[in-house]
Amino acid sequence: MYQFYMPKTTSMDIIKRPTLLVNRSICHTNIQRMEEHARMNRVAFRPHFKTHQSAEIGSWFQAMGIRSITVSSVSMASFFAEQGWQDITIAFPLNHREWDDITRLSETNNIQVLLESTRSAEWISKQECNNLGFFIEIDTGHKRTGIHPGDISAIEDILETTGRNPNLHFRGFLTHTGQTYRSEHTVEMMQHHVEAGKALVSLKEQYENKYPGMIISTGDTPSCSLFDPFPGMDEIRPGNFVFYDLMQYYLGSCKISDIAVALASPVVSIHPERSEVVIYGGAVHLSKDSVISPEGISTYGLAVKLGCDGWDTDAVYGHVISLSQEHGIIQMEAAKQLLPGDLLAILPVHSCLTMDLMQYRPEGVRII
Amino acid sequence: MYQFYMPKTTSMDIIKRPTLLVNRSICHTNIQRMEEHARMNRVAFRPHFKTHQSAEIGSWFQAMGIRSITVSSVSMASFFAEQGWQDITIAFPLNHREWDDITRLSETNNIQVLLESTRSAEWISKQECNNLGFFIEIDTGHKRTGIHPGDISAIEDILETTGRNPNLHFRGFLTHTGQTYRSEHTVEMMQHHVEAGKALVSLKEQYENKYPGMIISTGDTPSCSLFDPFPGMDEIRPGNFVFYDLMQYYLGSCKISDIAVALASPVVSIHPERSEVVIYGGAVHLSKDSVISPEGISTYGLAVKLGCDGWDTDAVYGHVISLSQEHGIIQMEAAKQLLPGDLLAILPVHSCLTMDLMQYRPEGVRII
Repeated sequence: MYQFYMPKTTSMDIIKRPTLLVNRSICHTNIQRMEEHARMNRVAFRPHFKTHQSAEIGSWFQAMGIRSITVSSVSMASFFAEQGWQDITIAFPLNHREWDDITRLSETNNIQVLLESTRSAEWISKQECNNLGFFIEIDTGHKRTGIHPGDISAIEDILETTGRNPNLHFRGFLTHTGQTYRSEHTVEMMQHHVEAGKALVSLKEQYENKYPGMIISTGDTPSCSLFDPFPGMDEIRPGNFVFYDLMQYYLGSCKISDIAVALASPVVSIHPERSEVVIYGGAVHLSKDSVISPEGISTYGLAVKLGCDGWDTDAVYGHVISLSQEHGIIQMEAAKQLLPGDLLAILPVHSCLTMDLMQYRPEGVRII
Repeated sequence: MYQFYMPKTTSMDIIKRPTLLVNRSICHTNIQRMEEHARMNRVAFRPHFKTHQSAEIGSWFQAMGIRSITVSSVSMASFFAEQGWQDITIAFPLNHREWDDITRLSETNNIQVLLESTRSAEWISKQECNNLGFFIEIDTGHKRTGIHPGDISAIEDILETTGRNPNLHFRGFLTHTGQTYRSEHTVEMMQHHVEAGKALVSLKEQYENKYPGMIISTGDTPSCSLFDPFPGMDEIRPGNFVFYDLMQYYLGSCKISDIAVALASPVVSIHPERSEVVIYGGAVHLSKDSVISPEGISTYGLAVKLGCDGWDTDAVYGHVISLSQEHGIIQMEAAKQLLPGDLLAILPVHSCLTMDLMQYRPEGVRII
């Protein structure tokens, strides 16, 4: 949630330290594609801003007419409210300890929070508040947070309890189908997508007469990239698609050329005898998230060539096989072709975590 | 590298969001113990400041008479130089792209860099510079960076090439015995420690006549915590010991009560049916580093009770078994005893990475 670095030169020569390059043109295409996908399918598009956390990248969405967003923390909601975003869903279970911030935000903005327990419903129903929307979070198989769609007694209980507070407004049912990330193939992912859709639509059918205007909201990047929204769905909330990353590429959600971020990293050590190159670029830059590549390598990122204008996904060097705090080790046959001081670009495994780390570093993010 | 939060109240009640608690008293004991260990063994103590990256915690070392430090980046060297530290080893292979910053720093400070290739030696020997010290980094088995101790021709080459630049000063041989972290038991760790020591001492014997005053420098927290320095060693550079963490505890480097940091995390969701509690505290707070616990659980942290004065390692709840961006899932039998809004303390797996993440967050670190 900082300003990005916009040097006057486009050259990569001025890069001294690990720098997250954001390709504006790829981001634009990714946003446009998803916005069109939502529009063609007549569902509302409420992109998740946790991936970029950036005022500037937010403005690219705004320029395409998007007015409603999702965030994953009250802090992020406050940040984007300051940037003029007025319709914000905080897609995270209600944190009682941030209640003051939530009520302050809801004075001047349309804020929606998530409820997923009768205890939180009881608690919130007794609080003084301004108009505040809430979704009931449904666990459609991710097993992280949310109420089982069959647990009608808990849903009834939450609706009844919150109904006592006239400033609380039920907006509908929401799910995060994060189980798609655990799918072994697209057919399984499709099954998760369909099952989650059915569960939400069934709830909508039960409650829409009593709560006219309520909606059902879903959205994870793999499902939203690969499939049409389930019939009856009202809103999608993907986030990662703005950048995509290696994990999404391996899941099949995007092409490698759709990945919009790469970490420019100086080469500092070369070991041709073990086909390894060490970069300045470690766990504090890329984050320690890994994924198994199709070749069975546990990877922290894919090293590709970096030219004057950007990275080249046709020129792959090899995988980042190990990370310590500041070092990354890349396994690559072409090790002996490199020199200390050369720059490589690393396609990150998980762009949300990489951006979260790099945004705080002085000149850590650069838009190209 | 930011200011920490020092609220006037000592109560935990004001904690709203994930907050890294630093127990000053435990840190003091950890620093004092290591300083005494070095003094009793007549080796210089040059603590690694990458673990805390903090001006304030640095001042605790200073108060104990410590004047020489290690860092892992030129940025960190610049930060600590601004704080008045004048004798700094940058224990990272020379990054050619930061040469201007290095020369600027060496104008007014004693800076030592690492060389570990003949190419970097050739390059640096042609640069204009102020007086600059350098170590030759030796790879004693970690296989990340450094020259094999038997590769005398590379060592000779580096010494000969750098000898042409009168402002470059050879300080000695340095190693990071990070292979201790991969040890399966203390005996294996001891073997790594002894082998690394022998390799450095052998080099010292070969070169100390030609380079009087040269030293040999080693140091990783497990070796420095468990063993006496190898006879003949001149300097140790442990870093993690100031906080320790779950990884060090499982390696046997510390007692659980020596761990000086814990992430205070609000409970946001409770699922007794699967013995799980979800906290506000995720990969962007703890970092996604994991370790296998003695019971065979792949853990991202250990949840313990948090009282008014701090955490209680005698009251263990369970392991953090999964992390997403903002969520952590704790497996714990006592799930049903908790309420949303309660606070837990998480002992992190890797305190260096947790501190790196939390230092940037407003009110992210609190000293108790």
